[in-house]
Amino acid sequence: MTPDVAQDERVRVDLSDRSYDILIGGGLLAEAGARIAALGAHTVGVVTDENVANLHLQTALGSLNAAGLKAETIVVPAGETSKSWEVLGRVVDGLIAARVERGDVVLALGGGVIGDLAGFAAAIVRRGVRIVQAPTSLLAQVDSSVGGKTGVNSPRGKNLIGAFHQPSLVLADAGALDTLPAREFRAGYAEVVKYGLIDDPAFFGWLEANHAGVFAGGPERTRAIATSCRAKAAVVARDEHEHGDRALLNLGHTFGHALEAEVAYDGERLVHGEGVAIGMAMAFRFSASLGLCSLADAARVTAHLAAVGLPVSPRKIPGGVGGAEALLAHMRQDKKVERGRLTFILARGIGKSFVSRDISEDQALAFLESELG
Amino acid sequence: MTPDVAQDERVRVDLSDRSYDILIGGGLLAEAGARIAALGAHTVGVVTDENVANLHLQTALGSLNAAGLKAETIVVPAGETSKSWEVLGRVVDGLIAARVERGDVVLALGGGVIGDLAGFAAAIVRRGVRIVQAPTSLLAQVDSSVGGKTGVNSPRGKNLIGAFHQPSLVLADAGALDTLPAREFRAGYAEVVKYGLIDDPAFFGWLEANHAGVFAGGPERTRAIATSCRAKAAVVARDEHEHGDRALLNLGHTFGHALEAEVAYDGERLVHGEGVAIGMAMAFRFSASLGLCSLADAARVTAHLAAVGLPVSPRKIPGGVGGAEALLAHMRQDKKVERGRLTFILARGIGKSFVSRDISEDQALAFLESELG
Repeated sequence: MTPDVAQDERVRVDLSDRSYDILIGGGLLAEAGARIAALGAHTVGVVTDENVANLHLQTALGSLNAAGLKAETIVVPAGETSKSWEVLGRVVDGLIAARVERGDVVLALGGGVIGDLAGFAAAIVRRGVRIVQAPTSLLAQVDSSVGGKTGVNSPRGKNLIGAFHQPSLVLADAGALDTLPAREFRAGYAEVVKYGLIDDPAFFGWLEANHAGVFAGGPERTRAIATSCRAKAAVVARDEHEHGDRALLNLGHTFGHALEAEVAYDGERLVHGEGVAIGMAMAFRFSASLGLCSLADAARVTAHLAAVGLPVSPRKIPGGVGGAEALLAHMRQDKKVERGRLTFILARGIGKSFVSRDISEDQALAFLESELG
Repeated sequence: MTPDVAQDERVRVDLSDRSYDILIGGGLLAEAGARIAALGAHTVGVVTDENVANLHLQTALGSLNAAGLKAETIVVPAGETSKSWEVLGRVVDGLIAARVERGDVVLALGGGVIGDLAGFAAAIVRRGVRIVQAPTSLLAQVDSSVGGKTGVNSPRGKNLIGAFHQPSLVLADAGALDTLPAREFRAGYAEVVKYGLIDDPAFFGWLEANHAGVFAGGPERTRAIATSCRAKAAVVARDEHEHGDRALLNLGHTFGHALEAEVAYDGERLVHGEGVAIGMAMAFRFSASLGLCSLADAARVTAHLAAVGLPVSPRKIPGGVGGAEALLAHMRQDKKVERGRLTFILARGIGKSFVSRDISEDQALAFLESELG
C-alpha cells in the first residue's frame, strides 16, 4: 500500500477544455523548463518573492533557459502584504513590459500569496494568459495552487478582488518543502487533515498512523499531497465556481478567517493554516454541541491536530482575540455570505461534513462565548 | 420591410450558460429597475460618469428605486482617462463598500469607457458579480456593450488589462442617443458600417439608402442598431474568446488603433470611431492595392463614410500623424500580435472581409507611405 520509494504522481483536474495535470514528486522544479516548453510557450514571466527567489529561483531559471525559453523575473516582497492592489498593478505592468503574450506563460514560483497574486495577474493581462503554478509551500501544494481561485486582498477584506483562472499545469515539487520552516509545514498540514475530515475517513485514519512520515518527507509525503490534490480536484471538477459542493472546502475556514481577521492577519500570532486547525476543531465541537456528531469524533480531531503541534483553541492565540460579537462581525463580511445568512461547514462525524445555512446568529454567538469564555 | 413605428427588438447572444438578451428600443432606461429585479438582484452598484449622470442617472435611479432595489452610485470623470488602473481600483472599492454580493448586479450606465471599466470591475469583485450594460452611446450600443470584452488601459497600450465577462443583459435605449453630440454619433456609425463591410453587403446597401433615417432617429435607427448587435452576437457566439473569427470585428482597427496612438488618444483630434472609419477606408485601399478587391468597392466604402461626414484619410487628422515607421511600431504592440506576425483584416470586396497573417512588414510599410506621402 505504501511504496518504498517516492514516485511522481499525476492528478488530473477534469474541467473540459480547462482540464490540467497536477504533478507531484521530487525535483519537479528542475523540470519546469521542459514541461513549460511542451505547452508551446516562448516567453515565461516568473513571479516570485524574495525568500523563494533565494532558495529556488536559480533552479527554475536554469531549467527555463536550458529549454530555450525567454524568462523575465518579477520579484515582490515576501508576505501577505504583497496580495494588494498596488503590488498587483506592478506585477501586471511587469508582465506587459516583458511582452508575455497570449500563447506565453506566467510561472508562479512560491507559496499561496505568489500563486494568488501571479494567477490573478495572468488572468487579467491581455484578458488572460496561461499560468503554471509551482507551489513551494505545503499549503499551496495541497490547496491554493489547485482550483483556479486567484486574487488579492481589499482593505475591506481578504480575497475580495480576484478571478477564477485555472492553471495550465501545477508542478508540486515535494522536495522544495524541505526548505520550509517547521511552523509553515505544520500549518499546511492542517489543510491535508481537512480532506480527511470532509469526506475521507480512511485518509484521516492513515494520517493518524503516518503523520511522522509525512513530516519527514519521502513516499508518505508525496502520497499525502497527491491524496489531497485528488480530493480537491474532485470537488473543483464538480463545482468550478463555488455554487455548491465547493463550499465544503471551507471546513474550518469560517471560524479560521474570523480569527485571522481578529489578529489583523498578523502572521506572528496566527498563520492561515493554524486558523484553519483551530477552525476545524471548533467546527467539530460546534457540531457536537448541536448534537450532530459524537463528542468522541470531535475529541479525535482535536487530538490529531494537537499531536502534530497545531493549535486547537482560540484561547491559545498569543495576545488573545476579542469577544464573540467581534468574531461574528467578521463572519458576516464574507464573500460567501448570501443575503445575510451565515454559512457553516458542520459534520455528522469524521468524513461526514456538510454545508449548513440553518444556524441562527444566536446559536453561533452562544457557541463562540463557550469557546472564548 | 421598414416598420412605421419603432418597436423594441430583442437579440439573443447564444453562449450556453452565459447566454443573454440585448434589448433595443426607446425608453429602456426607465425599465431598468423592473428588468434588473427580474434577474433576482437586491443591490445594484451603478457606475457612470459625470456627463451621463447629468443626463440619465435620475431616470435610472428612479426606475431602480421603483422596483424596490437598493442602488449605490459610483461616478467617475468622463473620458478615456478613467480607463485606468487607479480609477478601476476606486470603482472596485466602491462596489465592495456598497456590498454588491454574488447575486447582485453592477449597472454600467454610459458609453464604452464606462462599459469597459464597470464590466471589468464586476468581473473581479468577489471573483465575479453580474453586469448589466446600459450603453448610452451609439458606439457602445453596437459594439462594446456586446461580447463581454472588458478592461482598462495600461501606460504601455490600450486595453492591455482586462477580462472576458459577459453581461447578464444589455439595455440599449435608442432614445438616449438623442443627447449625443453629432460627432460622437457619427463616430459610432462607423462601427455600424463595419458590420456591412465584414459580411453583410445587403446591410451596407441599406445603409447607403437609409443613413439619414438612422441619424434622425426612429425605426431606421433601431433597425440599424439591432442588425449590428445581431451581427456581433453571431461572431461572439462562434468565437467567445477571440481565437479566430472574432478577429474580423477588428476591421479598420489595426490602422485605427495605430492612428489613435499617434495622436496620443487625444479625442479632440481623433475619436475611436473616426480612427475606425479611416482604418476601414485604408483596409479597402490596401486590399485594392494588393489586387484583392476592386478599386470601385474601395471607392464606394470611402464615399459612404465621407457622405455622413466621417474622415477617410490619415492626412485629414488635425495636426497630422508621424511617418509610416511610427505607425508600424504601434501596430507591432497589439495584444492580438502572435509571435511578432502582424494581423490585418482585408477584403475581397464589400461584405467579403477576411483575416490575413501573410502581409510582410515591407508591404505594410510601402502602403503606409503611400497613404501619408
